[in-house]
Formats: sequence, structure tokens, C-alpha cells
Amino acid sequence: MIKVAIIMGSDSDLPVMQEAAVMLDQFGISYELTIVSAHRTPERMYHFAREAEQSGIKVIIAGAGGAAHLPGMVASLTHLPVIGVPVKSSNMSGLDSLYSIVQMPPGVPVATVAINGSKNAGILAAQIIGVADASVAEKVKSYKATMEKEVLQKAGKLEDKGFKSYLEEQ
Amino acid sequence: MIKVAIIMGSDSDLPVMQEAAVMLDQFGISYELTIVSAHRTPERMYHFAREAEQSGIKVIIAGAGGAAHLPGMVASLTHLPVIGVPVKSSNMSGLDSLYSIVQMPPGVPVATVAINGSKNAGILAAQIIGVADASVAEKVKSYKATMEKEVLQKAGKLEDKGFKSYLEEQ
Amino acid sequence: MIKVAIIMGSDSDLPVMQEAAVMLDQFGISYELTIVSAHRTPERMYHFAREAEQSGIKVIIAGAGGAAHLPGMVASLTHLPVIGVPVKSSNMSGLDSLYSIVQMPPGVPVATVAINGSKNAGILAAQIIGVADASVAEKVKSYKATMEKEVLQKAGKLEDKGFKSYLEEQ
Amino acid sequence: MIKVAIIMGSDSDLPVMQEAAVMLDQFGISYELTIVSAHRTPERMYHFAREAEQSGIKVIIAGAGGAAHLPGMVASLTHLPVIGVPVKSSNMSGLDSLYSIVQMPPGVPVATVAINGSKNAGILAAQIIGVADASVAEKVKSYKATMEKEVLQKAGKLEDKGFKSYLEEQ
Amino acid sequence: MIKVAIIMGSDSDLPVMQEAAVMLDQFGISYELTIVSAHRTPERMYHFAREAEQSGIKVIIAGAGGAAHLPGMVASLTHLPVIGVPVKSSNMSGLDSLYSIVQMPPGVPVATVAINGSKNAGILAAQIIGVADASVAEKVKSYKATMEKEVLQKAGKLEDKGFKSYLEEQ
Amino acid sequence: MIKVAIIMGSDSDLPVMQEAAVMLDQFGISYELTIVSAHRTPERMYHFAREAEQSGIKVIIAGAGGAAHLPGMVASLTHLPVIGVPVKSSNMSGLDSLYSIVQMPPGVPVATVAINGSKNAGILAAQIIGVADASVAEKVKSYKATMEKEVLQKAGKLEDKGFKSYLEEQ
Amino acid sequence: MIKVAIIMGSDSDLPVMQEAAVMLDQFGISYELTIVSAHRTPERMYHFAREAEQSGIKVIIAGAGGAAHLPGMVASLTHLPVIGVPVKSSNMSGLDSLYSIVQMPPGVPVATVAINGSKNAGILAAQIIGVADASVAEKVKSYKATMEKEVLQKAGKLEDKGFKSYLEEQ
Amino acid sequence: MIKVAIIMGSDSDLPVMQEAAVMLDQFGISYELTIVSAHRTPERMYHFAREAEQSGIKVIIAGAGGAAHLPGMVASLTHLPVIGVPVKSSNMSGLDSLYSIVQMPPGVPVATVAINGSKNAGILAAQIIGVADASVAEKVKSYKATMEKEVLQKAGKLEDKGFKSYLEEQ
Repeated sequence: MIKVAIIMGSDSDLPVMQEAAVMLDQFGISYELTIVSAHRTPERMYHFAREAEQSGIKVIIAGAGGAAHLPGMVASLTHLPVIGVPVKSSNMSGLDSLYSIVQMPPGVPVATVAINGSKNAGILAAQIIGVADASVAEKVKSYKATMEKEVLQKAGKLEDKGFKSYLEEQ
Repeated sequence: MIKVAIIMGSDSDLPVMQEAAVMLDQFGISYELTIVSAHRTPERMYHFAREAEQSGIKVIIAGAGGAAHLPGMVASLTHLPVIGVPVKSSNMSGLDSLYSIVQMPPGVPVATVAINGSKNAGILAAQIIGVADASVAEKVKSYKATMEKEVLQKAGKLEDKGFKSYLEEQ
Repeated sequence: MIKVAIIMGSDSDLPVMQEAAVMLDQFGISYELTIVSAHRTPERMYHFAREAEQSGIKVIIAGAGGAAHLPGMVASLTHLPVIGVPVKSSNMSGLDSLYSIVQMPPGVPVATVAINGSKNAGILAAQIIGVADASVAEKVKSYKATMEKEVLQKAGKLEDKGFKSYLEEQ
Repeated sequence: MIKVAIIMGSDSDLPVMQEAAVMLDQFGISYELTIVSAHRTPERMYHFAREAEQSGIKVIIAGAGGAAHLPGMVASLTHLPVIGVPVKSSNMSGLDSLYSIVQMPPGVPVATVAINGSKNAGILAAQIIGVADASVAEKVKSYKATMEKEVLQKAGKLEDKGFKSYLEEQ
Repeated sequence: MIKVAIIMGSDSDLPVMQEAAVMLDQFGISYELTIVSAHRTPERMYHFAREAEQSGIKVIIAGAGGAAHLPGMVASLTHLPVIGVPVKSSNMSGLDSLYSIVQMPPGVPVATVAINGSKNAGILAAQIIGVADASVAEKVKSYKATMEKEVLQKAGKLEDKGFKSYLEEQ
Repeated sequence: MIKVAIIMGSDSDLPVMQEAAVMLDQFGISYELTIVSAHRTPERMYHFAREAEQSGIKVIIAGAGGAAHLPGMVASLTHLPVIGVPVKSSNMSGLDSLYSIVQMPPGVPVATVAINGSKNAGILAAQIIGVADASVAEKVKSYKATMEKEVLQKAGKLEDKGFKSYLEEQ
Repeated sequence: MIKVAIIMGSDSDLPVMQEAAVMLDQFGISYELTIVSAHRTPERMYHFAREAEQSGIKVIIAGAGGAAHLPGMVASLTHLPVIGVPVKSSNMSGLDSLYSIVQMPPGVPVATVAINGSKNAGILAAQIIGVADASVAEKVKSYKATMEKEVLQKAGKLEDKGFKSYLEEQ
Repeated sequence: MIKVAIIMGSDSDLPVMQEAAVMLDQFGISYELTIVSAHRTPERMYHFAREAEQSGIKVIIAGAGGAAHLPGMVASLTHLPVIGVPVKSSNMSGLDSLYSIVQMPPGVPVATVAINGSKNAGILAAQIIGVADASVAEKVKSYKATMEKEVLQKAGKLEDKGFKSYLEEQ
């Protein structure tokens, strides 16, 4: 059953937003991924958000850039947790996206991750689902353990070779 | 007949937003003024924006602070011109409000004025209505002429008295 | 008859500012487009702004970058609505342009759009003209409907193919 | 059983952070609230984060200001979802707090809310717990319904009285 | 003969701008001080700038806040050196004033001083006049020598008393 | 006789700073151009600034990037007018350079131009020299007239050809 | 023997800068504290920096605001480690001070602490002296232990009383 | 014996961080260089920082980007002086890194250098070690003398050739 919805304001956000999908695949969490524009398809957004709960969706990941209203508007239309991904904009480096998403008024939170932090949105969705699903929680734990191991390996390699050889091999 | 709607996300925006109403009163343009919250009353916002045209509204002035989604969302739901007023926020001096309102994506403009620029929103609404209504256009012209006269009087007074006396009298 | 003037401070702004013209062509609104520099041709600016009304101009679109004074100065010289386009500058990403255009003092509004938001300036001009001209208003409505349809088609395609194929085809 | 931990870097953050506790009380969610400083009590932070899961904690809310490392460091030490509250700092209005919390690297998300957005942190914690606990989800829904009703009442009052009387009564 | 003109966009700028006058008085340089608003009295600005040279003005000091166009527009209308003073604005701490004044395009410089740096504008005007007038140059030199002496005295006093007594006496 | 000194903190500033020299050549004003680093050659800076007046220098143009101390330090060591050019830095787009140069304390002004505004520094130097030298003032006037003519020609060409042809020819 | 010099650009910086002195007193490290202005007493600065080593000074703490050149200029004139304290400025909240101090060019580092971070400057000076002086290092260690204990006590008190009583007692 | 540790959050920081190593090599100071991630290897960071003193380390250089917690967390775990290098981030040009590193709370300083200022971190480490080791202090002095000589040579060459030839040879 589909547990997470990944939505974005435009297909130009897809190269960034796909990283959330890749993480969910890795955690074995089913998801749907589509385009929902707050500004160009407001009716679609309305119905999507209102019906998300009944479709069995547990967490919504919403990415948008510029005057990024999608995450906040979806959050206003559902009681499900909404994760907001500020997509880097061409003119303000994503500061406009970040402020538009994170500075929500009291009553309607959006769980905001870093600019272009779509991968972390996927992990956060898994952490949230893991609150109730121990098998997902285990997968997050083991993901973190793997990540640690990889850094330790790189550290070992760097110490062994010295930084000059290490850089040459990159 | 009501020609302008002045809406705001919260009654805490009223001290700022009333200045638009004061200007419209001065220009003899009828308006309605109310609270429409994108995040706390999304259904109300939806219906307000969809029905604005049929109510005879010509221009919408929308003010909001922080992650200010009201102007942009109303603009997505109507073809009427929407003027956005970024209300100064307590934590970011209104930069978040400004970026959330002005940085709209292609296809859905919001005519943005200065932070807390509600008075100018009222004047801009009059200028827009003045495009088709010569009597309103005349009132804007004469408002500008009065404004010029007032500055000239102050300049004259300052030149006459010198700056020390002028400051003492303030 | 020419209804909109599109002016810009320099021909280096033309690649951005032409998008307003393209939108006006699409809405069947006649316009003139030329260079008027506040800083290098102040007399020309003065005469342009003072005579705009008598030439039948209804809305002025003005684009400029850096210390962008053109939109505000033109607004000070006419009672017509002025739409300001902050053109992205090479050194401050257009923040200087945005602040110089949007932060106008009480009495002289400029309807500001996003950085490089020239396309939206064209749409906003059409919305303003549409206040009095029902046929233009209809064109704006149908433009918005088309835009919605295009997003829905992309959403459908993305859902059908999945994001990996979708990205490969781009 | 205690489900949420609310921690903060200093007791000077308490006036802001208590709002999360107030919301959790309202939702009937048990919590512990204490001081854990990343910089002044790193050992305490280490043990707190490592043992949170075994204490039955489901969600951690962490608030900090300036170079705000607490939310991110706790997130690095547990697989539980961590909500970060950037507390407004005296010298940078909380921009330093926001950037230090939200800009986490790939692999270690922090669910960031607005500057001083502690109330929303409480609501978000309830939404996350509501993913698995339908009774909490119902409480969030009814909170949102109440919030909507309150805005509608204010809007009605403002429309009835007019803005001048409304402002006088404030 | 009047050598310097001190102009400002509004009498609300006078408390800041008077410091330039105080400095010029101290250097024995005659000046006129008045209000010239780029946005509210554009004709006055035009005539002021065009006639400045013939009135014998050598240097113009122009202060303005927000979308501060006065210094740049005056600079576009005269070949005299123009010193711009960004007046601190209520909503953006003067960043808008600073960017609007300093980021002038190639061909039309404005000699910009610090936000609210009106005193330095007076000194800079004296330095410029001192290029041709040795007696003014001497006065600037002696002003700098006095300033140095004052700091040395304070340093001596602080070293003698220690910082605790020094602070108590303030 | 050499009237203007153009100094810069590093030869990496030369591509920007040479534009001042090109303008001075155009105005027939003699200058010297060299490297003086506040941070790497403090003694050289000290002697340069202390001896500038006696060498007959009338105006100093100083460019630097990052923590740009050269213009302000030179200004502290001479009573001659100092024009500061904030050179665009690689990491902060020149905001650090701008703030380090323009925000001078009371008593020690630096006449700051735009980021990378070296050309304007040259023109401003000519305007300052023109205060006492009518032939230089005339050259500045005629430079401005030529600039105006060039814009008018471009405007005419753009109006004649239309923007599509104009862009194609670029 | 005097080991640390605490200097500042103006006596208005003293309320901030004294905190470094208080810390050094606490660590039993002797210091001198005085005013040295880069811009108003450049000769004094020159001699101070050049003679610091011979006076036995080991570390220099320099605080300044706005275009804060003192720390960087002193660093250019000595090989001793220089700690820079960006003093909060009235118009830019200390961002100008921070950028002017931290963004030093390659070759001349300044060890920068937080805006108004004078207390930390004192601790950092002790840490640096502690590299060679084990008794000072011990004092820093025990300061950190005390700090930890104080936070633990506050945490205990907060847990015991609950946040409502805790806040009431403040 | 190893005196300095150079650590960084990720091997992607190595191209920047190696410059510190190059400087230490030049000063003949032994160092270790490795990866220690605050977020991905918190245990490793804990042990590294706790054991640094006993390994004989005198100074720690820590570089990180984005929500850069490594320098501050290491500083919280040791009494040794910690130099922080804000590594330029892809989305915020390193402002997030800078604020996360420099804005440390009272009690736990980090000696922060410029964005990407790794070379200066190496020099600062040498200056700190030079407090107790006169031979290292001599090397820093002679490094600064060489740097001065190089600038003087470039200045001489630029004066001899003129800027046009100088630029052509680059």
C-alpha cells in the first residue's frame, strides 16, 4: 500500500525530488510521485490534499521553489505530517524557497529540510513511518550504520594514503 | 458597488492593512475588508477567490506575513489583478513575507508593494480602476498634486526657518 | 491603439524584457517597446512618462537592474499603473534591483513582480486592462486554463511512465 | 508513557520552548522537558540521544539558538525523528539558528520549523504520533477545525463592526 | 557663496541629514539645506539638479531611504559630484537604501557613505572642496588631528582609571 | 602632473581596477596605478598614504575585496578624498567587500561606488577634479552627453527594427 | 607579566569588550586594556602592533564594529595570534563587523569569534596560552567542568519543578 | 611529534582543507589529517576530541560546510584551541557554514577563519604554536616578510610595465 506521496510544483523540480523516491525505494516504502502545482493547478492540489488520508497516505513530501506555497498549502488542507523541500531557485539560490516553506504561522507546521534536501526528506519520511513500524525503524538504523561505516572506510583510506594520493585518485 | 476586496491572513495584520482602506475611502472607491487565511481557512479562501469576479470585485488587495501564501494562492484562483502586501514579520523583518509574495512563478503574477506598503496598495488599486474610470484617474492625479504641494510647503518652511528651528518645532 | 509601454534601462535587459512583449502578443494587446534610461537619458524619461497618458498608454512595464530607478521614477511622473521588473544583476543576483523597485515610499506605488519576472509583468498588464475590457479578461482566463491543462498532462505522463523514464526523455 | 522529549540548549530558551509543551498538553501527549546543551553538556546529550529510543520516546523536539547544534547532533545519535526549533538569537534575528538547524547534510535530516516556531513543533510531533495513533490524529483534526472556526468568527466580527470599531476594541 | 547643497527626500530624514550641515558649519563652508523628493516632487528635483551648477554649487549631498532614488537621479542630471547618504529605513535597516544608492550603473557614480553616515558626507564634501581650496584642506587636516587627540585622551583616561571606573563614570 | 592614484590590494584586482584608468585616460587626467596591500604591505600603505598629498595627488581610488581594509585605512592616513571600489569576492559576491568599505565610522569617509564599479570610480575622480578644473568638468559633461546620445541611438534602432531583429543582430 | 592585550576601536565598545577582561581575570591571566582606533589613531595602532611582541604580549584581542579594520590591520603588523570580536553595529546588527573581520585574505588570519562574543575571546586567549602553560590549561578545563555542572543543576531544577514553576521563579 | 590535527566532515572538503596541511608542511609542523564527521560518525568525533590532548595535539583545525557542527562540537569536547574553517556550500555560498561555526554560545569559542580560509587556518595554528615555540614564531615572521616581498615585486613590475602589458602577460 502506498504510504508516502512525493509531489512537486513543476517537472523542473524532478531531478531534485527524485532523490526522495530513491531513498524510499531503498527503505522498501511504497510511494506515489507526481506533479501538483499550488499556483497552476489549485483544484488538483485541493483534492489531492483533502483525499490523501483516505488513500492511505501517511506522510506527504512536497517540493517547490521560489514563492514556494505547495508544502504550506497542502499542510493547511490535511492533518498528515508534511515535509517541505525548498528547491534551489535560479535567482535567489533557494533562500526564497526556504523562507516561503519554513516560516509557517502557528497552527500549520511544515517539516522543512535543507535547500535541495530531497534525500533527507525521504529519510525523514522513513523515520516518521518508523515510529509505528519497527521494521522500517530497523532499516533506518542500518542505513545510518552503513553511512558511518563508509565514512570510517574513507577516513582509513585517507589516513593510509595521505591526502595527496587520495586526491589524485578522485 | 464594491470594487475592491481587502483581505488579510490574520487580524494582527489589520493595523497595517487598514491604510489601504483609508486610501480607498479617500478616492471614493467602495471596498469590503475581511480576514481570509490561506492556512487556517483554506476553504474560505477558495470560495472567496472563485466568487470574487461574480461579486463585481475588480481588484483584490491581500496582505500576509511570514510564509505569506495568501496573495499568491488567491492569484492562482482568479484572473483578477491581485496586489500583495508583505506584512512585516516579527523575526525576519518582513523579508520572508516579501520573498513569499513577490517571487511568484511564471503564469501567476502578484503586484507586490513594499513591506507594510498597504497605503500604496490602496493607491495602486485606484490607479488600476482608473484605467477604465476617468473620474478615479482624476482623483489619483489630484492626490499626487496635493502630495507635491505638501512637500513644497515643507521645503519652503524648512528653507525659511532653517533646520534648527524646524527640528525644534517637530 | 497602443495600450502598454514596455521600457527598459538598457538593451542588455532586452533578453529578459522581451518576454512581456511575447505575452502581450499572445493576448492581442498592442504595445510599444523601447529603451528609456533613468540615469543616462533623464530628459527622455521625463517626457516619456509625462506624455504616456496622452499617447493612450494604459499600463507601463518598466524593467531595470542594480540601482533600478526607472520604474519608480516613471511612477512619480504619471498616474498610470507602473509594473516594475527587477532585472537580475551580475553582482547581487537582483536583490539590489528588487529592493530598489519594491521599497517605494508611501504615495508612489510600483507593482513589482519577481526577479526577471517579465513574463508575469505581461500577464499582469493584461489583467489590469482586463478590468475594463472583458475580451482581454477572457483571454487571461483561457490562458490560465491552458496552463492548468499542460500541468495536468505532464502530471499524467509522469504518473504513467514513472520518474525514471520521464527524466530520460527530457 | 512519555512519548515526546522537549529539550533545549539553555533555560533562556524556555519561554519559547514551553509552547511546544502547551500544545502537547492540549493533545494529551505525555512528554518530558529538560535542558540538554550540545556545547556545555556534550556527554549528557550523547546519553540522552542514545537512550531516547529505549525510554520509549517517539519524537524529539530540540530548540537552540545561534550556532544551534543540538537538533542536528541529536539527530546524528538516534534514528528517531527530530524536530528542530531555531530560537531567535539576539544578534542575527535567528538566521544563524535557522541555517545551523535546517542545512543538515544528506543522511541526517532535522524537521525544521519556523524561527521561534515551538508551538508548531508541538503540533508536528502530534501529527507524527498521529500516523500510528488514530486518537491523536483525531485531536489534530479537531484542533485544526477549531482554529478555522476562530478565524471565521473573527472575520464575521470584523465584517459586522467595520475595521475602525474592531481596532478600537483591541 | 553657497558651495554645497544638502537635500533629502523627506523631512523625516532631517534628524539624520542635519549632521552634514553641522560638519560644514564647523569647516566654515556655506550650504543650502532643503527637501527635494525624487518621487513626490520630480519637477523640483529636475530643476534643482539642472540649475545647481549655475547657482555655484560645487558638491551635492543627497540623503534618502527605502527605494532611495534621489542621489542617483540627481547624479544623472548634473556633472557635479553627488554624495549619497542611505538613510536607515524602518523595515530593512537601510539595506534597501544602501543598495538603491550604491549600485549605480556605469556612467553615473554616486559617492556613497555608510547607512546614516551624514556626518561623513559633510566631511567628504569638505575633502572634495579642499582639493582646490587649501584653507578647507587645512581645516580637514586639523579636524582629523583633533579627532586623534580625543581618542588618545580617552585611551589615556581608560588606561589610568581601569575599565571598571571608566564605565561607572559614563 | 599626476593627479590620481589608483591602488589595489592585489594584482588579481587589476582586471576590474583598470577600468578606472581607462576612464581617466579618456578624460586626459594623469594617474599612477600600482599595488598597495593593507594586509601584506602595511608599511608601504602607510608611506603611500602619508606622502600622497606631497606627490601632488588630489584623489585616491582604492579597490579591494573580501575584508577590504585598503580604502578605509588609506582614508585614515590622509585628508585627500578616497574613492573605494568593492571588488567582487569569490565567496560572498562582494557583499563583504562592500560592507567593509562603505560602513566607515564617523570622521573617516570613503566615497564608495558599486561592486566592481571601477569605471564609475574613474568618473567620480574626474568630477571631483572638475570642481576646480573647468576643462575637466567640460569633459565630464560631454562624456554624459555622448552616453545619452548612444542610448538614444540604441532606442531608435530598437524601435525601428523591433525587438526580434534587434536581438538577432546582437 | 602582561600576556594579553585587549584593544578596541572606541570606548563605545567597552561594555562589550570588558567581558574578555573579566574572563582573563578569572583565569589569572594579566592583560592590558585600551583604545586603539585603526581609523582615528593609525599611528598609535602601528606602534602598538609593532611593539606588542617586545612588550611580552602573547595574544591580542581586538574588537571593532562597522567597517571593522582594527583586528585585520593589527594582524598584518604582527606575527602574534589576533582574536577578532565583531561588535554589534547599530545599523547592520554586526553583519558588517563580522564580514570585515572574518573575511581576511590568505596570509593574514584573524581568529574570529561571534558577534559581541567578547567573553569567548577571553576564553580563546586562555586556550592559546594554555598550549604552553599547563596551569592555564587546567583552569580552562575546570571552567568547562563548572559550566557543565551549572547546566546540569539547572536541568535538574527544571525537571524537578516543571517548566511552569521554573519560569515563575525567573 | 604530531602537534596539529586537521579534520573535516567529508572527503569532499579535502580540496579546500589540504591548504592548511600545505602551510603546516611549510612551517615544519607535524600534523595528522583525517575525516571526522559530526553527523555521520558521532562516536568517532567524541573519541577523537576526548583523546586529542593525550595524543599530544596542541591545536585542532576543523572544516565543515552547511550546518557545520564539527568545529563547535569538537570545541565542546576539549579544552584545546579549535580553529574552524567554513567550507563553501553549494546552496548558500558558505553563509550557512560561517554562521554555524562562528556564532558559538558563551563558554565554547571556535577561532573562525574566512569561508574556504583553510590556508589561514594553517597559519593561525602556527601562530598559536609560535606563542610557546620561538622557532615556529620566527618561521611565521619570515613567511610574512616573504609575502611582503612578493607583493612589492609585483607592484614594481606593474609600475614598470604599465597595466596593459602586465595584464597581457598573465
